[in-house]
Amino acid sequence: MDITEFRKRGKEMVDYVADYLETIEQRQVYPDVEPGYLRSLIPEEAPDEPEAYEDVIQDIERVIMPGVTHWHSPFFFAYFPTASSFPAMLADMLCGAIGCIGFSWAASPACTELETVMLDWLGKMLRLPKDFLAGTEGQGGGVIQGTASEATLVALLAARSRIVKQIQAHDPQRSEVEIISKLVAYSSDQAHSSVERAGLIGGVRMKKMSTDGKFAVCGETFRKTLEEDKASGLIPFYFCATLGTTPSCAFDRITELGPICNAEGMWMHIDAAYAGSAFICPEFRPLLDGVEFADSFNFNPHKWLLVNFDCSTMWVKRRADIIGAFKMDPLYLKHDHQESGLVTDYRHWQIPLGRRFRSLKLWFVFRMYGLRGLQAYIRKHVGLAKEFERLVRNDERFEICADVVLGLVCFRLKGSNELNELLLRRINGARRVHLVPCQLAGAFVLRFAVCSRTTESRHAQEAWRHISELASELLRGQKLQIKE
Amino acid sequence: MDITEFRKRGKEMVDYVADYLETIEQRQVYPDVEPGYLRSLIPEEAPDEPEAYEDVIQDIERVIMPGVTHWHSPFFFAYFPTASSFPAMLADMLCGAIGCIGFSWAASPACTELETVMLDWLGKMLRLPKDFLAGTEGQGGGVIQGTASEATLVALLAARSRIVKQIQAHDPQRSEVEIISKLVAYSSDQAHSSVERAGLIGGVRMKKMSTDGKFAVCGETFRKTLEEDKASGLIPFYFCATLGTTPSCAFDRITELGPICNAEGMWMHIDAAYAGSAFICPEFRPLLDGVEFADSFNFNPHKWLLVNFDCSTMWVKRRADIIGAFKMDPLYLKHDHQESGLVTDYRHWQIPLGRRFRSLKLWFVFRMYGLRGLQAYIRKHVGLAKEFERLVRNDERFEICADVVLGLVCFRLKGSNELNELLLRRINGARRVHLVPCQLAGAFVLRFAVCSRTTESRHAQEAWRHISELASELLRGQKLQIKE
Repeated sequence: MDITEFRKRGKEMVDYVADYLETIEQRQVYPDVEPGYLRSLIPEEAPDEPEAYEDVIQDIERVIMPGVTHWHSPFFFAYFPTASSFPAMLADMLCGAIGCIGFSWAASPACTELETVMLDWLGKMLRLPKDFLAGTEGQGGGVIQGTASEATLVALLAARSRIVKQIQAHDPQRSEVEIISKLVAYSSDQAHSSVERAGLIGGVRMKKMSTDGKFAVCGETFRKTLEEDKASGLIPFYFCATLGTTPSCAFDRITELGPICNAEGMWMHIDAAYAGSAFICPEFRPLLDGVEFADSFNFNPHKWLLVNFDCSTMWVKRRADIIGAFKMDPLYLKHDHQESGLVTDYRHWQIPLGRRFRSLKLWFVFRMYGLRGLQAYIRKHVGLAKEFERLVRNDERFEICADVVLGLVCFRLKGSNELNELLLRRINGARRVHLVPCQLAGAFVLRFAVCSRTTESRHAQEAWRHISELASELLRGQKLQIKE
Repeated sequence: MDITEFRKRGKEMVDYVADYLETIEQRQVYPDVEPGYLRSLIPEEAPDEPEAYEDVIQDIERVIMPGVTHWHSPFFFAYFPTASSFPAMLADMLCGAIGCIGFSWAASPACTELETVMLDWLGKMLRLPKDFLAGTEGQGGGVIQGTASEATLVALLAARSRIVKQIQAHDPQRSEVEIISKLVAYSSDQAHSSVERAGLIGGVRMKKMSTDGKFAVCGETFRKTLEEDKASGLIPFYFCATLGTTPSCAFDRITELGPICNAEGMWMHIDAAYAGSAFICPEFRPLLDGVEFADSFNFNPHKWLLVNFDCSTMWVKRRADIIGAFKMDPLYLKHDHQESGLVTDYRHWQIPLGRRFRSLKLWFVFRMYGLRGLQAYIRKHVGLAKEFERLVRNDERFEICADVVLGLVCFRLKGSNELNELLLRRINGARRVHLVPCQLAGAFVLRFAVCSRTTESRHAQEAWRHISELASELLRGQKLQIKE
């Protein structure tokens, strides 16, 4: 394909993308295919000779679309949202064309510098304490990670490295292996599975703290566990707090937990993967109070801030902590400016070496929406969740299972877990809307997350009508069974 | 921005991208900017209200381009290539629009299934042993990782988990911590820094094996080290072999090393990040002989196979090994088909949870180039490297420092390291071409890597003329200094 053909095909692709998104509502949100469906639809080997572009494009509808779960359908209410916006897609095209690999400042200065400044912009939008900003002289700063899982892991590894160095500074005899064998990290029993996984990868003990009636970890529980663990010779070193848990969007009490972590010299990382975007609104910013006690903070603009995946933003108070855990400098990556204070080599901040020019997406989105546009977007989603909550509350067969704070509604039929499992199966079986479940205090619960950029009141209303009809059918069927 | 404006802006962006790539040769390959250049060019905060799209676009040339290192300029010969092709860019646009997060089969079946089949296609192109293919009943299979660093780490973690389980199966008394404290992993002293980093993250000892005159690890050295380590109570568990090292594109002798790893029950991972793409050509396939002894194999189509970053392909012989190291199944990620043999949940294969629909890029590239087109591309680059090698060899002031096997030429002025450092400084200072150095057996060496898709003979010739002129100037200056 030469450049002339690319101009033509690229414009056709823009139209295909626009058509897809414009009519996505008419597609079935969740596919019908069975496992293994795709293999038989295409050849067993790559072609020897080039094929016609038309043939490739035709296969999108024939091979791919039948197996796509349409995350951007306004009837998709599963998991959490993944962001999509036109400015982000345009920026991504530019990112692909520049195609630089920004592992060091020299590898493409613009890639590194725009990232640092965009993370400062976003940090200011969140009113993060100044310690987290890079500015021109700060000790802290931000970085774009691929996912929140990576941010959690990077923070844990930085914390592990810091505590080992601290202990060895006082007691040079103690080996790293022996120290690591005594370390213990903590998170909520509601924390994302990736937190437990970070412990597994880092080879440290990870304890899940029990939560209160609001599914939040509180200071009292934490303090008690710490005392017990220290008494038995363990070394608490890392706490991963969650703001906006995956099951129910609960908020750990970081104003209580933060001071404890600080007093104990533990690293506090805050994972606000989903909820973080909301903190750009003054009315939701109090949920972030206590961030001043944290060592690192992370959330995913690629979830709820209109920046297409991947873009997980992470800030640290002391860059030195994070760099210290990883720094390696082979000659082929050295460059002249390396030792100057202004230069950031992001390869020392992350697990991968290579990285795309992802800050372009932030830049385009911030400028094309403006802070007010982004706030309006968050508020619209929260409004839709509240609207859905009211619909559920008005139906006495149902119950709401957790406070609706942002865009997630946890609900269920009053009754057994089996009944609710059956309801969910019917909902997803009907393919009109798509939801996933969670478990809250032993109860099987349905999660309704407002996801798509194009979800409106009519979609929430229609989803509710459909769910409540399926519930009626189900309950009627059950009554019949009992009668029989 | 509404959908109508996106159609317009998208097409303009296609033209901007095409213009950029069409005229990239005229841009200075390496930028003039000083650290911190960008911050003063843009506001200190995000705008409150949306800006005009024209203003954003104008800032590309004003703010971004002056700080870009143009990796796709035909005068870029630094690091290793990063791939770029029109079919891959088109696929990436589609990937952004579908915007699904394929962490599990159910999250978007097409995303998972196309990946499995594309990795089989690519595996067949490489003539990988059948054990590495998924097929419909295989125990192995492939996955797209973000980078080779992640593949190396995932393999190490899988190996760590496997050996711990094996030892505990015989001796349930031994704790994981104690076993890990005895583990030892190995790589070449020429291996990429990410290999050492994987050891650091995994909390295991990592030993660098010394290499022979060809910068390769050979069986003899390895066997000796193993014996010594076992005698001192350590447990060898992982060897990361490199095919095509970063400094000089050297090849560890895997036909010797593989049988040793197998006999010792060690995990052998092969990192062929750069060189792997060449193995689709029959004449370079012998370089991969010995892969049959490996547990896992990885290379980066995003380097040299015309697939834009990120796309690092990894195969394992036993999926169970890799999944066993990570598997966690919270309720919100469970789905009906999970337990069937045909289903792959790729979240268990990688560090992040989320993942893009990257296999679309492979599909488009394979079909639009065909195997022959891809082979021709590899051969063209190797030819250009050979051409540059001849130019160097014809100039008796210079020496070639390592065999030119693929697209990398390692060369230097006969003389001191200082002289060569000075030459490189002048080359990069002149900004006409961009190179980075490496160290080989104590010598400071210049690396000339054929990188861009559009590099032709005239660029290699011009680069050589320029380098040799700079060398003449430098040597003249030095003679004058001596005379004075």
